[in-house]
Parts: sequence; structure tokens; C-alpha cells
Amino acid sequence: MQKSIDYHQLMEMEKQERVNLVNSLGGFKSVCLIGTQNNNKQLNLAVFSSIMHIGANPPLMGVIFRPGVVERHTLENITLTRFFTINHLNETIFKQAHQTSARYDRTVSEFEVSGLTPEYKNDFFAPFVHESAVQLGMEFKQRIDLEINNTILIIAEIKQIYFPSDCQSADGYLDIEKANTITCSGLDSYHKTIRLDRLSYAKPDKELTSIPISYIE
Amino acid sequence: MQKSIDYHQLMEMEKQERVNLVNSLGGFKSVCLIGTQNNNKQLNLAVFSSIMHIGANPPLMGVIFRPGVVERHTLENITLTRFFTINHLNETIFKQAHQTSARYDRTVSEFEVSGLTPEYKNDFFAPFVHESAVQLGMEFKQRIDLEINNTILIIAEIKQIYFPSDCQSADGYLDIEKANTITCSGLDSYHKTIRLDRLSYAKPDKELTSIPISYIE
Repeated sequence: MQKSIDYHQLMEMEKQERVNLVNSLGGFKSVCLIGTQNNNKQLNLAVFSSIMHIGANPPLMGVIFRPGVVERHTLENITLTRFFTINHLNETIFKQAHQTSARYDRTVSEFEVSGLTPEYKNDFFAPFVHESAVQLGMEFKQRIDLEINNTILIIAEIKQIYFPSDCQSADGYLDIEKANTITCSGLDSYHKTIRLDRLSYAKPDKELTSIPISYIE
Repeated sequence: MQKSIDYHQLMEMEKQERVNLVNSLGGFKSVCLIGTQNNNKQLNLAVFSSIMHIGANPPLMGVIFRPGVVERHTLENITLTRFFTINHLNETIFKQAHQTSARYDRTVSEFEVSGLTPEYKNDFFAPFVHESAVQLGMEFKQRIDLEINNTILIIAEIKQIYFPSDCQSADGYLDIEKANTITCSGLDSYHKTIRLDRLSYAKPDKELTSIPISYIE
């Protein structure tokens, strides 16, 4: 049986119910920890499921920030210092990552309360998450205010990339499933993955084939 | 072993390798079919992995469009008619969905070539994908040109929602894993999921607990 909900029924739902439903409707999402610090070395770490690919040339990612306490510390640090890190979640750290969404005071480092380890390398200003297998060093490029619902889109460029050396295919594809990266749905559900297939570049009148992953290492 | 790639190494990579790598770095993505038609009932269907949640109140989703042939037909129809559908992929249809990314002529309906079935209901202008278990009817709200890389962000409002009636939890959360929704990584890798846990709302100094899913039906 199919259930249907229209706009008016949706707007009449209890608020948290609507938030849970609408957050589920977009499908599975990227879920990552964003690491920042201010100029006094006060660290901040927060989990985000609003990270998206914007383009490969230049290499750009976007993050939607909502007007909330947790996001605000991260956004303030990015605005102030221009640098942040994106760190993939895995099965070992997703509970610690989820805990960073609690409304901690500004002077609290979520690295400390969650037990995750800040890692500095190659002179990058912002802290990476040591326990994360895929880590990106990002530089702020543009802020776009989405007046339609008062959220903020931050666009940033990838400056440094770290990943397990046995997870990359010869064609460039990074096997994030092999790197144990997980995904999320809604606001609070975490999922690991099982690859169904990699499919060849689609062309009219040509049968799709599986792309084998030939790991470089 | 950890491998590192910096910005300059990334920019010196062969183009398709860089595209494959950067598209993998954002983590797992939502992957959906977008259905449209023009005013002459010429149908269009295309797979997108650049769909994201923008907000729940009002219920908004965003889609990034690249300057490409496939995306252009979809974008033209949305601009012209203001309506489109978002349809989740599942294991049964992901190959047909991938095939819609081939560069078909404007007069070709990707519904026909992929063998997927257009479905009209409740007077919604755009065609849903019958084989998709989670379907959204969307109305165009805003276009934002991202000049940084010439992509276009389309923001649209959810007007109609369809999903299997046995997949919703009493708290509003829709169990898209139970609805067989899949996810993707990179440009061409499709994955099903296994839930690790649903975690309670995080608060300082409070232990996280599992949220049981109590299906309404």
C-alpha cells in the first residue's frame, strides 16, 4: 500500500514529525565531521549531513548551515579563519560523532567530550579527526544566504586530501565503502553499505557493463 | 598506509581521474530520478546524485545542475513548467536509472528507452516513476547561479509525497532502507544499506540510546 501526503497535510503535522519525515525524503546523505578552530586554538567539532559535491574543476564542496547553536560555532570559525576539515564517519566513531550535535558551550571542545583526536598535518590550520579514514582540508570560497529559509550555503575548495592508500582505483574512483565510510538517513539513522555494482558510462544503444575496481595498491 | 594529495597534485591529474576522485570525496549521496515534461507532453527522465535537503519548514530540496546535455533538458522543462518529480532508486531499477544518463536526443523519452513507466496522479503536472517506491512532487521556487563554477542550484518545494505505508515510524521518520532506497558514491557506484543504529537526540552529559522504529502500520 502506498501512502500519500500533500503539502497541506505536511504543514499541519506536528513539527518534529515533519522534520523527521522531510529529512528522510531526500534519500541517503553524506555524513561527516567538520573540524575548526578559532584564532585562540579553541577547537570545535560538529557532525553535518548537509555536505554536497559542487564540482570537480575547481574541486568544490558545499555545506548548508542552519541557524542553530552547534552549526553557529562551526560557521563562525570558518568565517573567521577561512579553513575547516571534512572527515568521513565510519562504524567505529559514529556514536561519538553523533554526540557532537549536543548543544555544548562555546568553550567546550567537542573533540574532548567525544573522545575523538585532533590531528594537525602539513601546516593545515584546522584540525582533522585522527579516527577518520578519509579527511579533507577545505578553504572557504563563498557564502550564499538562502533567504527562502534563512539557511546559509558555504562553498569551499578542497586543498588537501587524505585516504587509505589501498582504497583507490586506477581510474581515480575512491572506494569509500572499502574505507568504511558510512551514510545516514533522516536526522539520526546511520547505515553501512554493500556495493551493488559500478556501471559503465552510459551511451545510447549501448549495453551497460560492470566496471571492475582495480586498486592501485 | 595513508595517501595524501594536495591541491596542486589534484589539478595536475588527468581530468577524468580527478572527476572520479573528487566525486567520491563528498561521501555517499542521494541518487534519484528526476521526471519532467514540456508543454507538448514530451517526457524527460534523468538520474541525479546532486539532490539535497534544504529545510523542513517550508519543505525544500535543492538540486545542482551542471552544464551538460542530460541535465539541460531537465532544467529547461523545470524552468518552463515549474514542476518535476524526485523518485528514489532501488536495487531493481538502478541499471535502468543509470542508462538515463546517456546523451539522448531531446525528442527521446528516457522513460521509453529505459523501460520505466511514467505515472500521473492527483493532477500533478510532471510524471512520477511508477517503479520507484518513494516519490515526491516538486514545485520550482528559486534559481541561484553559482558563478564560481557555472553550476545552477534549483530550490523547490515538496508538494506531494508518496511512500510505502509500512515504512513510516510513529515519530515521522521514513525508513527509506525498508523502502529499498539505495545510495551512490562517485559517478557510477551504487550501494544498498544496512542500518547500524538510530541514535537519540544528543544532549551534553547524557548517554546516547537507540531509537526503536515503531512502524505506524
